[in-house]
This record gives sequence, structure tokens and C-alpha cells, in this order.
Amino acid sequence: MQFDSDLAAKLDGKTKPVGSLGRIEAVAARVARAQGRLDPVMKSCRLVIFAADHGIADEGVSAFPAEVTRQMVLNFASGGAASNVFARENGLDMSVVNAGVRGGAFNLPGVHEAAIAEGTKSFLHGPAMEAEQLYRAIQAGKQIGAEGDWNAIALGEMGIGNTSAAALIAHRLTGAPLSDLVGRGTGISGEGLIHKHDVLRRSSARVAETLGPERVLAEFGGFEIAMMTGAMLGAVSVGRVILVDGFIATSAALAAAAMDANVRDHLVFSHVSAEPGHRVMLESLGALPLLQLDLRLGEGTGAALAWPLVKSAVAMLNDMASFAEAGVSGQER
Amino acid sequence: MQFDSDLAAKLDGKTKPVGSLGRIEAVAARVARAQGRLDPVMKSCRLVIFAADHGIADEGVSAFPAEVTRQMVLNFASGGAASNVFARENGLDMSVVNAGVRGGAFNLPGVHEAAIAEGTKSFLHGPAMEAEQLYRAIQAGKQIGAEGDWNAIALGEMGIGNTSAAALIAHRLTGAPLSDLVGRGTGISGEGLIHKHDVLRRSSARVAETLGPERVLAEFGGFEIAMMTGAMLGAVSVGRVILVDGFIATSAALAAAAMDANVRDHLVFSHVSAEPGHRVMLESLGALPLLQLDLRLGEGTGAALAWPLVKSAVAMLNDMASFAEAGVSGQER
Repeated sequence: MQFDSDLAAKLDGKTKPVGSLGRIEAVAARVARAQGRLDPVMKSCRLVIFAADHGIADEGVSAFPAEVTRQMVLNFASGGAASNVFARENGLDMSVVNAGVRGGAFNLPGVHEAAIAEGTKSFLHGPAMEAEQLYRAIQAGKQIGAEGDWNAIALGEMGIGNTSAAALIAHRLTGAPLSDLVGRGTGISGEGLIHKHDVLRRSSARVAETLGPERVLAEFGGFEIAMMTGAMLGAVSVGRVILVDGFIATSAALAAAAMDANVRDHLVFSHVSAEPGHRVMLESLGALPLLQLDLRLGEGTGAALAWPLVKSAVAMLNDMASFAEAGVSGQER
Repeated sequence: MQFDSDLAAKLDGKTKPVGSLGRIEAVAARVARAQGRLDPVMKSCRLVIFAADHGIADEGVSAFPAEVTRQMVLNFASGGAASNVFARENGLDMSVVNAGVRGGAFNLPGVHEAAIAEGTKSFLHGPAMEAEQLYRAIQAGKQIGAEGDWNAIALGEMGIGNTSAAALIAHRLTGAPLSDLVGRGTGISGEGLIHKHDVLRRSSARVAETLGPERVLAEFGGFEIAMMTGAMLGAVSVGRVILVDGFIATSAALAAAAMDANVRDHLVFSHVSAEPGHRVMLESLGALPLLQLDLRLGEGTGAALAWPLVKSAVAMLNDMASFAEAGVSGQER
């Protein structure tokens, strides 16, 4: 295609050995293609953190108690979480969305209320949510993903129990064995990890037939995951680049990519998590993540840390001099 | 030690699962130890790019002609190189030092003149520089590394032929086989790469005895590498953290670490380069680099890209709420 060859010529004409900026060049190219322009704009990024509770948390699958979801939303609202720190340091605008936290509305200026219900039901015994709840969550997400004029959106999440939901979503959408996708989450180990795996195996066995992405989200998802899925669809509808965070956010990316074939071209994968199943998910999406820092926190932290790389990559494409402009000799051997 | 246990308690008390910020926690700890305080300061970073020419470039070891060193200094001075773009995007102050470029002084406000000579001699036939030149280069570097009040210094370089110098320095200081350390540099391949390896093998054979770090620098170094070595020593003398860039900068780190045992504790390794020998050097220093982006440009680009991670890591240590402060429940399983 003409666009691709023009883009390659622009990158290769910059004052550097061809290809010597590695994945930085790949990210610049991805953003250029997503925006359909050789001079893409990448100056602003909104980090949205979706929080919700999970019925499955009551089955003893997490190292932390379920009330931590609510406590962490308060921590986000008062600016004390890792996400807040990284967003401030790296110049992202941060918002927090109550997608369905136990205990009702927060009534705080820093928390956008969009709760579908006070947490999902335990998917060990039945669907996590009703089809109508899924629909509302995706619609709410679409609106958030499409609104505003940020160049990029980074999606994060908070929800005790949500590595369990994400593992099942990935299992059902990629076909990878559950054992490759179940990990320690926030830090469960030993007996607890065996129990988590057993709970997830039995939950998946509850629904034998092959499921499409929406049914997978309804059966095993969380409201924050469904809303992130919607936000990705909404972002793509306005041509916005999406910074994907870790294990949970990538499960939403799997669902969004299965629902809309245009999604993949808008995704920039921030990092590969220490949660082993993340690598499995990334491979199924053909993703080359930017960072490998052994992060396993979620909350959009990896995306907030990767944002300066995305911004720098696009600045390189726009602002760096070419050999011709700078009067620098090219390669001779 | 009390300091280490206090530091671990501070990190583990933050509102996140223990260890869940991976290498970001490791970087925060390194900076805290280097500054000897639990609330380290990491707000400002100076990027210094040292440029010099190499006699070995006349032996056909590079894909680019030697005049590119001078042309690239002009590109730095006019703000068009990748380093300029990344320094601007990520908030580093950038300086350029003429450590010994062919063609004489630049007489430009953006270029600090500290040339030792107009390039080194070809080390295929004799020492690259005199002992007295090495001494002056290290002294000039020490002054630059110690001056100002930046919290960190990032060191970059420009010098056609300098992967050849760096490969020999690493070979002589680590004992790793030359074949593991000779790579494509700016893009030499096929016959050219075989020729480069042969030139370096013959150059090394010229001096059979075991050499200390200063003799290694004098025999095979460049003025920019010697000055970076000095800058590291100077930075450590004032307790400053050093962001090490890629293959060439790491060869200077090998020399500096061999000259002063305190150096290692002040080094933060920005990235692992696509130049295969970089991994060998990093392993010999026990380094865990932050980024793996297949960069192979040098010029401090990897360090400028890693700076936001270092700044974010320290902000996490200083500004993130603890479980107690935020009223968040701890791990229960």
C-alpha cells in the first residue's frame, strides 16, 4: 500500500541507522496507521480505571478480601495509589469509574458513577451477569471510550477476584489450557492456588458449549471488564489509540477484538505482566508489548508507565530530522 | 542492615501486593541506596552526549563514513536527532560535548568544547591514545559528571567506529570471547562483519598481556568512552545516579566499575540493546536493564526513554499511600 511505503520511507529517512529504534519505530507506525496519517498526533492520554466487585471473590480465589475493591477506589479518589503517582509523573489525565462496586455509590467528585449492580454473581454457580447487564456495561464503556478529545486512552481496572474472571475469558476465547492461564494474581499461593484452579475448572465446566465473546463476558466477566471492552469499541469508533495494560485489560482486548475486527489495529500493548497467562493472551493477539518489568498490579499502572514511550515514538516520527534535512551522510556499506 | 530493612518495609507497606511493581521497585531501591535515604530525590536528569572520532573507522569497520560523527554533532546542536526528541519529550536537559571530533572546534553555543585531539589513532597499529590523553579525557569527564545539581546523569555518545572500540574494551575487561561481542553496529553485514571481526581480533592480538582498565581504555578506547568513564566516576563522587545507555556506554561502565568499586551501586541500566554483545556486558555487571526495545542507536536514546521509569519509581516510593494511610486491608491468604 502507498501509505505503508510512504511511512517506511519516512522512518528510514530519519537520521539513524535503518530500524535502529526497534519497537519504538513499530509503535510509531502503529499509531500512524491507526490515525491514517504520516504525522499522527499523540500529545494527550486519558487513563480510565474501571472498578467492580466479583461474586467469585467469595469462593476464596484471591489473596485479598473483597472490600479492598472499594477501599482502593477511595485510594484512587484521594490520589494515593500507584496509578495516581504514575499518571501524575507521566502526564496522563486519570478518571475512576464505579462499574459495580459493593456498598453503593461513592458520592465523591473523583468517582464517575456507572455501576451496573453491586458486583457480579459467583460464576461458579451461574452466569456472572444478565445479558441486559452486559449490554448496559458495554454501552457505558463505549460512551467513555469515545468521549473527549484525548489522542489515546489507557484502560485500567480494580476488582478483587478479577484475575479469575480474566483467566476464564482468555481460556474460552483463545482455547489455551486453563492451567496456562491461572496464576497467583495478587499473591495467592500453595493450597490457595490449587483451590483457585479447581474453582475455575468447575466454573468453566458449567457451560460446555462454545461461546461467542458476549456470552463469555456474561458468563465469566466482571462489570469492569465488560466496560473496558466497551471502551475499546468506543475508542476505535473515533479512531483513538488504546493503551492496553496487563492481564485483566488484555482479557477485555480479547473480547473486543473478537467483537470488532478493527480493534487490533488500535491496540498498543504496554507490558507483559508477571502473571504467566498474560504471555499466552498476548501471543494469541500477535502482540509485542513495550515493557517487561515483572509488573502484576493492574490498575493501569503498566499503561501509565508505557505512555511516555508512545508519546516519544510519535514525536520521533514527527520531529526528528531526516538525512536530507540535517545534511548527514547515509549508510555506505 | 537497618536501612535495607526500613526500605523493604516502606516498599511492602505501599497499597499494592508485595513486589507487584517488579523492577520499578528494584529501581526505587537502587536510587534510595545510592542516595542513602528512604525519600530519595529524583526530579531532574541531565543527558550528556560525548562525541569523538576513531582511527579504527578508517579500517572499514562501520556501515557509515567517519564524517557522520561531525554531521551528527551538528544535528544534536540544531535539535534534530532522536536524542533531542526524546530528551524534550521526557524532560531531560541535554548537552553535547566535543570530546575529539575530526575537523576542529564547532564554535557553536550548543557544543561544549573539550576535544582531546581530532580523533584517536587506529588501534590496529598501536594504542588509540597516549596515557596523557587518557588522563585528560577522564579528568574532563569527572568534572562534567560532578558539576550542576541534577539528581541523575544520563550518558550518551556519538562516534563512528565506536562499537569496535567498545567490543574490544568489553573483551579485555570481561574475558568474554570477541565473537560474542562483535556485532553489526550501525548495520554492517556479511563480508563487512567478517572484516570487522578480523580487524578486532588482530588489534587485540597486538597487546598480549593482561591490562588494567586504564590501559584497556588507552589501547582501544575512544575519547568519548574515556570521558564517559570519567563522568561516571565524577557522578559517583557526588552521590549522583547514572543512567547507562547501550553498548558503548556500558563499555565505559565496565571500565568505571573496574576503577572504582562504588560505581556499580550508582548505575541504573536503561535497556538491553539489539547489539548482541550488550547482553554479555550486562551479565558481567549483574545488571537488570529496564527496557528491551531492540534499540541499537546509542546517542543516549535508551537512557532518555528510560528516565520516566526512574522518575516514576522514585515518585512511587515517595508519594504512594501505605495500607495504613489509605485504610486498605492487607493480604489475608
